[in-house]
Amino acid sequence: MSKRNTVTLRKIAEATGFSINTVSRALKDMPDISAATRQAIQKKAHELGYISNILASSMRSGLTHTIAVILSDIANPHFAIIVKDIVEYLRDYDYTAFVITTNEDENLEGLAIKAALSRKVDGIIICPTQQSTENIEFLTRSGIPFVLIGRYFKELETHYVICNDKLGGYQATKHLISLGHKNIMLLNAEPHISSSQDRQEGYTQALFEAGLPVNDKLIHNIPVLGKYESYLDAIFDPPVYFTAIIVFSDMLAWELLDYLAAIGYRIPEDMSIIAFDDLHSQYALPFRLASITSQKEKMSHLSAKIIINQIANPDASQKEKIVLNTRIMRRNSCVGPAL
Amino acid sequence: MSKRNTVTLRKIAEATGFSINTVSRALKDMPDISAATRQAIQKKAHELGYISNILASSMRSGLTHTIAVILSDIANPHFAIIVKDIVEYLRDYDYTAFVITTNEDENLEGLAIKAALSRKVDGIIICPTQQSTENIEFLTRSGIPFVLIGRYFKELETHYVICNDKLGGYQATKHLISLGHKNIMLLNAEPHISSSQDRQEGYTQALFEAGLPVNDKLIHNIPVLGKYESYLDAIFDPPVYFTAIIVFSDMLAWELLDYLAAIGYRIPEDMSIIAFDDLHSQYALPFRLASITSQKEKMSHLSAKIIINQIANPDASQKEKIVLNTRIMRRNSCVGPAL
Repeated sequence: MSKRNTVTLRKIAEATGFSINTVSRALKDMPDISAATRQAIQKKAHELGYISNILASSMRSGLTHTIAVILSDIANPHFAIIVKDIVEYLRDYDYTAFVITTNEDENLEGLAIKAALSRKVDGIIICPTQQSTENIEFLTRSGIPFVLIGRYFKELETHYVICNDKLGGYQATKHLISLGHKNIMLLNAEPHISSSQDRQEGYTQALFEAGLPVNDKLIHNIPVLGKYESYLDAIFDPPVYFTAIIVFSDMLAWELLDYLAAIGYRIPEDMSIIAFDDLHSQYALPFRLASITSQKEKMSHLSAKIIINQIANPDASQKEKIVLNTRIMRRNSCVGPAL
Repeated sequence: MSKRNTVTLRKIAEATGFSINTVSRALKDMPDISAATRQAIQKKAHELGYISNILASSMRSGLTHTIAVILSDIANPHFAIIVKDIVEYLRDYDYTAFVITTNEDENLEGLAIKAALSRKVDGIIICPTQQSTENIEFLTRSGIPFVLIGRYFKELETHYVICNDKLGGYQATKHLISLGHKNIMLLNAEPHISSSQDRQEGYTQALFEAGLPVNDKLIHNIPVLGKYESYLDAIFDPPVYFTAIIVFSDMLAWELLDYLAAIGYRIPEDMSIIAFDDLHSQYALPFRLASITSQKEKMSHLSAKIIINQIANPDASQKEKIVLNTRIMRRNSCVGPAL
């Protein structure tokens, strides 16, 4: 690190002709230094490349003003939007975010947590992989403030902010039923993921209320990440009759739309599609995909708020368990079934 | 921070019955400790929530093993993919990334740089806002290793990894000319952004080579971020004849496709569209947008590699200036002009 420029208060004092004490107070915006002097010192400090050292002061306060955000895949726009909203909320509190990705892999998740802890972050916002409870139990033992976002464990006592995925699954299914669909495929994520499980409960409940049977052949559980194409082949094998599909995410739905178009389906005439995440509110795309929206921005801001509160009040034992309602965004990818 | 669990080597020694020295050596994987002992100690350390303290060791080595990635907008898939690729490359070197966003705002960029420096990151990968050279000159004075990604300054000596945007602009324009288009709109970003400027040079050169005039009314410069709709209205006012559009980014092109569809244009029959970023290689979307691809993954990996090399060899003065060739992804959003 020999070339790293370390601008000390002494250097700024020498360059400006003020005392070290005056320089120090000017850089801290102390009111006993005149505005003109403060400006002159701060300008020179900036020219010299001076930066205050949060790390040094964190050694005293015990805080680094950094939060780790641990989630599946930053290139997935759903997660990228969440990160953006968290980062912007934290900025107002002078907090910076570390983003660490897990690729939905429990081992990488464990490494991500250790990377965060060893860098002394003040708190962690995490969308857990849920392959087991081990990593989250480890986090609990570590004593660091953390909050789950988007997914939760029924069996663990933690802070979390999720949306009401059961309601979301119910809304999507009920919408299709109201259009006349009776054979509705659920292209869901794997059941260890809480949002997947809850959506399936909502799907089942809506069918039950409408007096429609639950057909296991219409329920598919596929990995959140990875190449979907082989799974998409599987949904038509064995052949089973359906006129609408509820898809775990908009991104998977895009791929499905592409896949169906390639084999000659017209959407929505031949197949109705509704998904989750409502990326279409964020990205103007030249087709109109119906979707269940989860109030992503509110979820992100609340999770950041909970972490900041935990850092400020480390002795509060009450766990915040926030469940936000979903809403349905009706768009023209859903119509009645062809007769 | 009273509840923060600090697991010391002493606690692990007491819990396992080994000496502090043995515990310390086992946690460092020293070969003089038997595999069975190492495993027992590491297992107990994990159960207790022990984490090694990179920060403490960084106080000795001067390194924090963190890199700041500073860019415009993480919710833009183009940047999200870049971050993903950087994060994955850095992980292999036990580096973690800070992501800080600028919203293309020079002042936020300045704050982002200071946030990174004050947290003692080992290096910075930055896609500069380019509203002025001031922030990058400040970075240079600070002495911290940094590399520009995606954009560069002709007038500054820095490391950078970019793609050959002039070639990209040339390829897009030449493709449309070869299909028979003579009146080609360039919906470009603002000219202070180097990629925008270079693409316009490529556009002009391709028109010149084909003996076609450059019509200023066909060149629009619009902000990279923000609501596009008002700008899209402007491209038809005053009315000017054109049969194809080259768009600065796929995301803007999606919005444009949506906009054109709403006013009754069929794509590609009524208007050919080609854009930049090739997000369609990453996201399977149910329409085929031609695009110029910039080898994002290679760009991301090379920028991370350059930072790691700079950290390892702080005295090397040679600046790495890497320009990657673009390629054209022909898709069916471009056909010949309607007669």
